[in-house]
Amino acid sequence: MKALEDKIRAEGTVLPGNILKVGSFLNHQLDVVFMMEMGKEIKRLFSDEKITKILTIETSGIAIAMAAGVALEVPVVFAKKNRTSNLSGDFYTTQVHSYTHGTDYDVVVSRELLNENDHILIIDDFIANGKAIEGLIRLLGQAGATLAGVSCAIEKGFQNGGDRLRESGIRVESLAIVESMSDTEVSFRKG
Amino acid sequence: MKALEDKIRAEGTVLPGNILKVGSFLNHQLDVVFMMEMGKEIKRLFSDEKITKILTIETSGIAIAMAAGVALEVPVVFAKKNRTSNLSGDFYTTQVHSYTHGTDYDVVVSRELLNENDHILIIDDFIANGKAIEGLIRLLGQAGATLAGVSCAIEKGFQNGGDRLRESGIRVESLAIVESMSDTEVSFRKG
Repeated sequence: MKALEDKIRAEGTVLPGNILKVGSFLNHQLDVVFMMEMGKEIKRLFSDEKITKILTIETSGIAIAMAAGVALEVPVVFAKKNRTSNLSGDFYTTQVHSYTHGTDYDVVVSRELLNENDHILIIDDFIANGKAIEGLIRLLGQAGATLAGVSCAIEKGFQNGGDRLRESGIRVESLAIVESMSDTEVSFRKG
Repeated sequence: MKALEDKIRAEGTVLPGNILKVGSFLNHQLDVVFMMEMGKEIKRLFSDEKITKILTIETSGIAIAMAAGVALEVPVVFAKKNRTSNLSGDFYTTQVHSYTHGTDYDVVVSRELLNENDHILIIDDFIANGKAIEGLIRLLGQAGATLAGVSCAIEKGFQNGGDRLRESGIRVESLAIVESMSDTEVSFRKG
């Protein structure tokens, strides 16, 4: 998505540790008008798939998942990190390793919200090493739901999570794939 | 908002500890079409205010804030709980007490995202005791921004956070105000 690549070049900042800071529009401040355009693009990319529900993970996935949900007119479920007291009943649950924080965390979804009739599109703001996405796919497996595909705003191509998913036969559509980045330049994979 | 009261009666569950579970549409699964209607209602309620930005807090505030942001065509900023490694630079910061978890947590917003020219609408999914909202108001104060008002989907009227804000002169518009609730019935404050 050319408009997203332009926005990353204009507003993104590269920080030490392979961090691409896009807090002005994607994951701290939300440029909601632009995000709704991203949602329409995700709908276009998956127009040949029957999708019944979107699954994302708190926190930063919620906004882009919602934009896609509005475009596709399907509900969004966001998986929660840790079990909190305002959840009741039974959960699908799995553990995910965070390289950013160096810790493991539990990811949970209420059993009421996913089942074997669902065709799920998984959405997140970033794919880097793909560990969070793989955790969501395990939750789908527990529910017996079908995975229609994976989409994200920004894929860090050099961290291989997206390509590893593709190699396992999963359809991954990222709106922008960063091939390399430095203090002075962000380069994108050619479509 | 009558449609929201109906939805709470139809889908909400009251759990021990004054918990109103609305995870089927508001804060675990998102009924995005309905949430966009809530966003339009918030726009209608604040149509006489000049609003430049919406401020909410992760996680559950993001979706309804985004719906209102789309309706009002303004950006949404979500305050973060704890400082994470993909934030850089300086932050407005304050501490909030969580009665649900019995702990204090830090709430931060990048200084780049709020300033003295902003007229802010604060939005959250719930107002209960109002501590999270009061924390966001302190962040606005640090930025020198103007508070246009506060809106939420569901106010727990019996926990007084909303009324305490109103008594201090703040405009609070909740889409539904629960006056009392039990296993068998949820009663709403008359408009």
